[in-house]
Amino acid sequence: MTDRERGPVSRRALLAGGALSVGGAIAVGAAAVRTGGDHAAPTPAPAAAGGQTIAFHGAHQAGVETPAQAHASFVALDLAAVADRAALRRMMLVLTDDAARLTQGVAPLADGQPELARMPARLTVTFGFGPRLFDVAGLTAQRPSSLQQLPAFGIDKLQQGWSGGDVLLQICADDPVTVAHAQRMLVKDSRSFATVRWVQRGFRNARGTQDDGVTQRNVLGQLDGTRNPAPGSDVFASAVWTDSGPAWLHGGTTVVIRRIHAELEKWDAADTVGKEFAVGRRLSDGAPLTGRLELDEPDFNAKNELGFPVISEFSHVSRAQVGSDRLRIFRRPYNYDEPPGADGTADSGLVFASYQRDIGEQFIPIQRKLDDADLMNEWITPIGSAVFAVPPGCEPGGWIGQSLLG
Amino acid sequence: MTDRERGPVSRRALLAGGALSVGGAIAVGAAAVRTGGDHAAPTPAPAAAGGQTIAFHGAHQAGVETPAQAHASFVALDLAAVADRAALRRMMLVLTDDAARLTQGVAPLADGQPELARMPARLTVTFGFGPRLFDVAGLTAQRPSSLQQLPAFGIDKLQQGWSGGDVLLQICADDPVTVAHAQRMLVKDSRSFATVRWVQRGFRNARGTQDDGVTQRNVLGQLDGTRNPAPGSDVFASAVWTDSGPAWLHGGTTVVIRRIHAELEKWDAADTVGKEFAVGRRLSDGAPLTGRLELDEPDFNAKNELGFPVISEFSHVSRAQVGSDRLRIFRRPYNYDEPPGADGTADSGLVFASYQRDIGEQFIPIQRKLDDADLMNEWITPIGSAVFAVPPGCEPGGWIGQSLLG
Ligand code: HEM
Ligand code: HEM
Repeated sequence: MTDRERGPVSRRALLAGGALSVGGAIAVGAAAVRTGGDHAAPTPAPAAAGGQTIAFHGAHQAGVETPAQAHASFVALDLAAVADRAALRRMMLVLTDDAARLTQGVAPLADGQPELARMPARLTVTFGFGPRLFDVAGLTAQRPSSLQQLPAFGIDKLQQGWSGGDVLLQICADDPVTVAHAQRMLVKDSRSFATVRWVQRGFRNARGTQDDGVTQRNVLGQLDGTRNPAPGSDVFASAVWTDSGPAWLHGGTTVVIRRIHAELEKWDAADTVGKEFAVGRRLSDGAPLTGRLELDEPDFNAKNELGFPVISEFSHVSRAQVGSDRLRIFRRPYNYDEPPGADGTADSGLVFASYQRDIGEQFIPIQRKLDDADLMNEWITPIGSAVFAVPPGCEPGGWIGQSLLG
Repeated sequence: MTDRERGPVSRRALLAGGALSVGGAIAVGAAAVRTGGDHAAPTPAPAAAGGQTIAFHGAHQAGVETPAQAHASFVALDLAAVADRAALRRMMLVLTDDAARLTQGVAPLADGQPELARMPARLTVTFGFGPRLFDVAGLTAQRPSSLQQLPAFGIDKLQQGWSGGDVLLQICADDPVTVAHAQRMLVKDSRSFATVRWVQRGFRNARGTQDDGVTQRNVLGQLDGTRNPAPGSDVFASAVWTDSGPAWLHGGTTVVIRRIHAELEKWDAADTVGKEFAVGRRLSDGAPLTGRLELDEPDFNAKNELGFPVISEFSHVSRAQVGSDRLRIFRRPYNYDEPPGADGTADSGLVFASYQRDIGEQFIPIQRKLDDADLMNEWITPIGSAVFAVPPGCEPGGWIGQSLLG
């Protein structure tokens, strides 16, 4: 808790408190001599999961390798006409300071509800820079080729309102109140520089619903996340953290955010066999159709008695596999579920976030193979798409984006 | 897990699985002789918080006295023109069956994603009947006088899209995936009888963020829920459970759902003294301005050195207090936080749910006093309003609403 918040009653505070008018009457006095002064100790930081923090500073930004929190808000900002390189620098200084504090359970400087900052619940704030930002900043030459715009895909039905953006704020925490509060602080502090283009809220199973580390089920009922580069592993580092191209992005990565609508009505109508065939894995336990356990290696060569592949070559996992670890992507998807239509049709799907060194080398080839032929396409439709470069992390005293804008 | 879901591969399933067409190609065969059969054991119900259940059957419906879960969806349905008493009976039979199963971690009969049902996470489904339902059912005389429509209040800026409704489905659980899934099943099964009028999603601090039983903070940063009739107590029973009027509602209650927008920008701009003065309690720990601890009894007669009341007569808690326990209301509010406007203005507030025996005797007098003069009105505006009678609970074999419609 800061002095600002709980300090000696200031004159300004008194005036504000004393000047509140109620239906014409003026309520004065009580605020001036309030009793709270001596026992106004701050609530201690909660001992439970709300008190857990993820380090903000480091070589990489948090929120990528971090085990996915239960709630996420992806906020895309459009830079204002006035936002030149100097303005961007100021913005990133302020937002970095906010994020460094909020993630550690400390209220940012201008926080109007500092109490809400004391429940970090593994909050991470991850910043991304969209393609246009480099032009705005007069740094077109620094735009990495790894930040490639996606081509149009046949399955796409993209809506502008869910696509594009100059700056990404990815805000994740295990508590939805924490996410709402952090989002508000960050959006507020970006206001002189940018407008809000879109906000996508997402959720996964609540923390504690299952044991930590267990694969989560998405709104389609699938175990989602089984075959992902393991955070902290060499495979992860070599697939995700940038090590070539413009030096400013080394230690950073790129993110693709696809809003993918799921036709749950049609999905319901399919039976278990059909659903499992489309994915190549069992619904009950996520095991590949050729295996016994979730983590068993799929055998794409196995044939059934009729000579057909057990895992169809048109199944999602068959299409999505890649030849080398360095070409893998790291998926960190969230569910969305907006109010259904009047007729009850669900508006549900995934906010699919994929991290990789290089969008052109890694994401696009996979997406192209899925576009060509993925049985899952019967039920899923991309309706939003955006790409961002995710700068490396920073040390205390530094700020996110410094290697580009500093 | 039901036989339906994981049973021997049926002919129909084979046909469906085998007939999936991929960009013209027909993917056949693999589904026919899938290997999964022998090791397709269901995932065991999770040992963690996801496995916790709240009893569905009993004298009262669950979801009122139940310690508030982290996530809620309030769904208001409009009855279709065809929905007469017989149709309503069928609808409530089906929905009761769905709710009885889902809340116990068992998939309803037509569940397309039965895996998602296995994580009840304290799911409750609470049904309510709006005023018009009684006319539709030809039971106008059975409409309880306790289900009084609210008068127009001066502070109201009600939007039709957040108001009214014939049937309420209140769906609460500690896991957002559980809520989304239960909502979809229930909305689907109500489809032949009704359309969706509005859906309000709400959240509170995640389960486990704090120790159970600790008062939660709302999006305004306030400890919200301190002075509430204690669930299970005599005070609760006498304030909430209906014991007079039409016999069919005995053991039931009424609920008022107000969508209350909070002007967080203005709230931010106020300082701590002003905010605490408006509520009559401290932000840090929720103690009354006359006390030391959250649960201290407020002293509305205490004066400061200038002779003014320490807790202003215009403060929220002063206006909201009532003379007798039987006149109290039980508040079970959730936060909402929709995407901000392009300029970053928050769209945030409370889905304020209040339970009481009698709306006219209990809720309206309090709301009237708040309407007349509550310092909090500077920052909060009701934008939605709906009232429902909440039938009593039922025993196994029975169904919700039977005492009215049976
Ligand atoms: C609504 C959309 C999607 C759903 C529901 C979905 C679902 C799944 C499921 C259930 C699995 C198997 C379990 C696992 O390994 O996590 C999987 C694997 C995978 N998916 Fe998706 N997916 C979707 C979209 C995408 C997209 C857009 C991409 C990339 C462009 C993608 C790439 C992958 C990859 C790389 C794997 C792992 C393949 C392997 O190495 O075994 N998915 N997905
Ligand atoms: C956005 C809207 C509202 C906010 C933010 C809010 C906030 C609060 C807070 C912080 C308290 C003190 C702590 C506690 O006892 O829970 C409180 C108490 C209370 N509020 Fe509200 N409230 C709101 C709307 C309402 C409405 C619409 C009603 C009823 C019409 C109401 C009735 C009460 C009652 C009965 C109490 C307890 C008073 C006592 O016995 O001490 N509130 N509210």
